[in-house]
Amino acid sequence: KGAVDHENYFNREYLDRRSDKRTDSGWLAAKQISPKTVFLLFHHLEPLVTSGPEEVNNSKPKLKLCRLRRDSVDELIEKSDTVLIFLGVEKQERSPSTPLSEEEDGLIAWFALNTQDNPTESLKSTDSNRFFLKGPMPGLLLLNEDEAGVIAQARSVLAWHSRYSFCPTCGGQTKVDEGGYKRTCLSEGCRSLQGIHSTCYPRVDPVVIMLVIHPDGNQCLLGRKKTFPPGMFSCLAGFIEPGETIENAVRREVLEESGVTVGPVQYVSCQPWPMPSSLMIGCLSVAVSTDIKVDKNEIEEARWFTRQQVVDAIAKSDQAVFTMPPRQAIAHYLVKHWVGINSNL
Amino acid sequence: KGAVDHENYFNREYLDRRSDKRTDSGWLAAKQISPKTVFLLFHHLEPLVTSGPEEVNNSKPKLKLCRLRRDSVDELIEKSDTVLIFLGVEKQERSPSTPLSEEEDGLIAWFALNTQDNPTESLKSTDSNRFFLKGPMPGLLLLNEDEAGVIAQARSVLAWHSRYSFCPTCGGQTKVDEGGYKRTCLSEGCRSLQGIHSTCYPRVDPVVIMLVIHPDGNQCLLGRKKTFPPGMFSCLAGFIEPGETIENAVRREVLEESGVTVGPVQYVSCQPWPMPSSLMIGCLSVAVSTDIKVDKNEIEEARWFTRQQVVDAIAKSDQAVFTMPPRQAIAHYLVKHWVGINSNL
Ligand SMILES: Nc1ncnc2c1ncn2[C@@H]1O[C@H](COP(=O)(O)O)[C@@H](O)[C@H]1O
Ligand SMILES: Nc1ncnc2c1ncn2[C@@H]1O[C@H](COP(=O)(O)O)[C@@H](O)[C@H]1O
Ligand SMILES: [Mg+2]
Ligand SMILES: [Mg+2]
Ligand SMILES: [Mg+2]
Ligand SMILES: [Mg+2]
Ligand SMILES: [Mg+2]
Ligand SMILES: [Mg+2]
Ligand SMILES: [Zn+2]
Ligand SMILES: [Zn+2]
Repeated sequence: KGAVDHENYFNREYLDRRSDKRTDSGWLAAKQISPKTVFLLFHHLEPLVTSGPEEVNNSKPKLKLCRLRRDSVDELIEKSDTVLIFLGVEKQERSPSTPLSEEEDGLIAWFALNTQDNPTESLKSTDSNRFFLKGPMPGLLLLNEDEAGVIAQARSVLAWHSRYSFCPTCGGQTKVDEGGYKRTCLSEGCRSLQGIHSTCYPRVDPVVIMLVIHPDGNQCLLGRKKTFPPGMFSCLAGFIEPGETIENAVRREVLEESGVTVGPVQYVSCQPWPMPSSLMIGCLSVAVSTDIKVDKNEIEEARWFTRQQVVDAIAKSDQAVFTMPPRQAIAHYLVKHWVGINSNL
Repeated sequence: KGAVDHENYFNREYLDRRSDKRTDSGWLAAKQISPKTVFLLFHHLEPLVTSGPEEVNNSKPKLKLCRLRRDSVDELIEKSDTVLIFLGVEKQERSPSTPLSEEEDGLIAWFALNTQDNPTESLKSTDSNRFFLKGPMPGLLLLNEDEAGVIAQARSVLAWHSRYSFCPTCGGQTKVDEGGYKRTCLSEGCRSLQGIHSTCYPRVDPVVIMLVIHPDGNQCLLGRKKTFPPGMFSCLAGFIEPGETIENAVRREVLEESGVTVGPVQYVSCQPWPMPSSLMIGCLSVAVSTDIKVDKNEIEEARWFTRQQVVDAIAKSDQAVFTMPPRQAIAHYLVKHWVGINSNL
């Protein structure tokens, strides 16, 4: 890979998406019946996980996705309201040394399926540690880093299917195409069938999330929504609007939510957030005003915090005057990045 | 503003969006009948423009949006298939010095409307220089910088309305809310009415567009689609997928389209692209391999170009072996940025 991106939770690419295979229906069909293929099961967008016996250290909960084989999902796949999507193939360090048969290309494919009925019956599992991860929050933050990225991809696409099964252009029914990355309208003559239109493709909503630095350089602006746990403060954030740049969205959202005027904006790193399908674009920005006037609809309170207060909150010290968002959230990383604490701490 | 973003075409914010006013139906209604309010008219998403008499210098075509008053659009606004959206208010340097009446807050509001019927009749205009700008390309690139940003906002939101008039969750009809920034499903009990769902809001599609630098530092990778004008090469680009970061999308799209492996990725600047509603996220990236193998479905040809070849193309010299995308495209800026030529040149 050779790159040095900061690795936020949900960022890791465990699979190779192989988008070229999405239109290869023969290949997809063969992989769907291959005994080597891995299936991830979702029920109402909640993934089937297991808490393995190695979970002895309570401070680092580690849930694992159940990697099912074809025979476990046979019944579910046939149901008409089950949606099946192709996720990609396991990355291979090098080409396999043993010659492969004609049908077998050595690629291990992964699929995800979302079912509406409770599938516990048809799974016929004897494994009592298996359960559907309630959520999305904080459940989805309890996975290991490799699997978090797979879940980000799978849950975003499955959530799109569960909300976009009708054609927005004509209101008609659609069918799933291209391994789950397209929905095609079934109404003859629908405008969505002419040209390329976004209505057919999964949605990704870009969101700006920003740490605003005080003009004195020693304080940062954090806010809390009514829905946050008591005492928690986080970075301000908001959806990028049509016709808007990242930088202007940062300035507009900060002004709307806190009354603070922002000057320069700098991109830091980003994070997919599959609830349902956002792309969090993390920025540092510098305020040119300091008076706070919160928009009570969105934010309950916003405050300037000193470096020391931030350090105390990160360390969860007795002096801490607020609590941080969880380490899996890019807001946590942005704050740590600012105080110059190595984020692996 | 105090910031130093590079100002790509479409990036300038001429209006203040005042999203707080979108839910203030009394204020919106009053502004819709105010004689000071500005209306931009679109027919099938093409804006009404005028070529003013000052257009003497052929090298800098300057079209202006027609800023209509309420009396010109009276008939159109009443039509049931006309969509009206609130764009924002003109920025004010300071609060007006004259005291304002109770009804008048001194804000000059802008709206945009899109009509399906040919409105030439009802406009009753005597101005023969007015016309609907055919497009979207290259028409939309011929505006002045102030108005380009307004068009990016207006066209993206209007295009969303023209494609998303049905509820994707239930297929039912929807109505326009919040000044045109929301569509609410009219089917009682629809799941889209519970909780906050992306189906109700305008879509913004994040796209990565990247200049790939050769490992030797002295060449860059450009490609051409079949649909490009002969001889034109541009940066590779592609939609960010669900569950994917900006950096990983750059690596995936470059590998898919050209076969080249990319290492580090750096964000440079972005640009809204209202065709229909993309956000182009411009990056520089460094290749770690050099063999080219194009995906013939997407790209007709991709090539490494030397710095000198790029300089010749920018200068449109006789030696140029390819032509650049227009200066209004962020691809043009990324290439110029790389060769270190001031982009105001
Ligand atoms: N794609 C979207 N998904 C959810 N809410 C959105 C979206 N776009 C705009 N909104 C609105 O943005 C509000 C959240 O504010 P913010 O995240 O600060 O932009 C929501 O209450 C919605 O009214
Ligand atoms: N939101 C979208 N709008 C249009 N095309 C999309 C979208 N998302 C994915 N695509 C697909 O992306 C292709 C263009 O490739 P690229 O721009 O390289 O990602 C189109 O032909 C579509 O198949
Ligand atoms: Mg907001
Ligand atoms: Mg917002
Ligand atoms: Mg917000
Ligand atoms: Mg592509
Ligand atoms: Mg693509
Ligand atoms: Mg492309
Ligand atoms: Zn349709
Ligand atoms: Zn509905």
